[in-house]
Amino acid sequence: MNQQEDRLGRINAIIEYLHGSPQRVNKIFVQKEKGHYQLAEIIRLARENHIPVIFAPRDKLDSLCPHHQGAVALVAEKEYSRLEDLVSGEKPAFLVMLDGVEDPQNIGAIVRSAEGAGANGLILQERHSAGLTPAVASVSAGAIHHLQVARVTNLSRSIDWLKEQGIWVVGAAGESPMRWFEFDFTLPVTIILGSEGSGLRANIRKKCDALLSLPMLGQVKSLNVGAAAAVFFYEVVRQRLLTSQKK
Amino acid sequence: MNQQEDRLGRINAIIEYLHGSPQRVNKIFVQKEKGHYQLAEIIRLARENHIPVIFAPRDKLDSLCPHHQGAVALVAEKEYSRLEDLVSGEKPAFLVMLDGVEDPQNIGAIVRSAEGAGANGLILQERHSAGLTPAVASVSAGAIHHLQVARVTNLSRSIDWLKEQGIWVVGAAGESPMRWFEFDFTLPVTIILGSEGSGLRANIRKKCDALLSLPMLGQVKSLNVGAAAAVFFYEVVRQRLLTSQKK
Repeated sequence: MNQQEDRLGRINAIIEYLHGSPQRVNKIFVQKEKGHYQLAEIIRLARENHIPVIFAPRDKLDSLCPHHQGAVALVAEKEYSRLEDLVSGEKPAFLVMLDGVEDPQNIGAIVRSAEGAGANGLILQERHSAGLTPAVASVSAGAIHHLQVARVTNLSRSIDWLKEQGIWVVGAAGESPMRWFEFDFTLPVTIILGSEGSGLRANIRKKCDALLSLPMLGQVKSLNVGAAAAVFFYEVVRQRLLTSQKK
Repeated sequence: MNQQEDRLGRINAIIEYLHGSPQRVNKIFVQKEKGHYQLAEIIRLARENHIPVIFAPRDKLDSLCPHHQGAVALVAEKEYSRLEDLVSGEKPAFLVMLDGVEDPQNIGAIVRSAEGAGANGLILQERHSAGLTPAVASVSAGAIHHLQVARVTNLSRSIDWLKEQGIWVVGAAGESPMRWFEFDFTLPVTIILGSEGSGLRANIRKKCDALLSLPMLGQVKSLNVGAAAAVFFYEVVRQRLLTSQKK
């Protein structure tokens, strides 16, 4: 949980958010021993919108927000988009998906590079990513306000859906013999980046149409995920610029 | 000045460093009102080795190193190389020069990407860069220990020298109409990156054989310098891989 997320402690404010902008609510803490019909409504609305609810002792909630009324909602810097909104553009889709990237510094850097490279949007997993906190927004140098971000329950199912839309799905995987520039990025594509520590999870890796690597020509084993992301994104830009020049 | 640099406060230790590994000394603070012939020797050796000497009140030195003897030396994480050492490889040179990039986070990221992309070395300016502090080393994920780094007095003169060695010099400049992939990176080359805020200084820009841009296709004005660096470095890798495949 990020120290810099907005926190709502008033029950009415939380319920309002859950009705009006549920995509912005990252997480809700509910006081364990507290019984109140309005808290039950918060929990119901949260579940309806796939927002994690965490039951915690009063101390925990006090530390998050001194004037709460038995629940504290952590609210993101901007509204999330639906996955469908990300693929509605005219140009071939160019999407970015993060699998297990949790560091706000890295997410912010990736948002900035993706927006700069003209990507249509970013796909994050609901439960495992940092969410769009003010920390992410700050590192993104404002790019967060110009890039659509969808938060999905299940990356694997989202990949299936993207494929049904005719979008290719490629993963960054250091050990792959296929180089990052050997894929035809003029096709509609989603690029998936895994965490620096463990890379893509096995089930995500299996779903990829291609796994692409950046060769490491020195002693270090991998690039920072933000740096690797930028290399991939600008390979898309390069290939699409060259194709548009040929036309 | 970086909080994590090693600090030497014993006069003998400082003099030893100045004799044995002057390249590792980033900066020396000397107590203003203190008169001591050994301090004069420190100052003389520092000047000989182009190490900045800062005269400061005792409070300042106390805050840097509680047990100092009238001088505090800030010592880098690793030893610097000479510029000449960076161009002695067999393959066409691939060097990176930083002009005004001061954030240790960015320098560390650039070191990591440069090492990963197989660069021969990094050139920093003596007075204006953060130096190789432990913070830089940590962000570099250890790459700092595998990449040669030269610290030079004057970037402009170093560019002249590099050109005399037959090395092309290109600068990253957002406003240039020439794209980053339109340069022939199979040539021996030095890539110069400027600070995020102000880019390359005018005198450095003028010396470049080519200025290359990464198009910004969204709303943000520039990439993070670490991300931009990685894109440039892997364009070198891409072109050289393709050439070696053709042979």
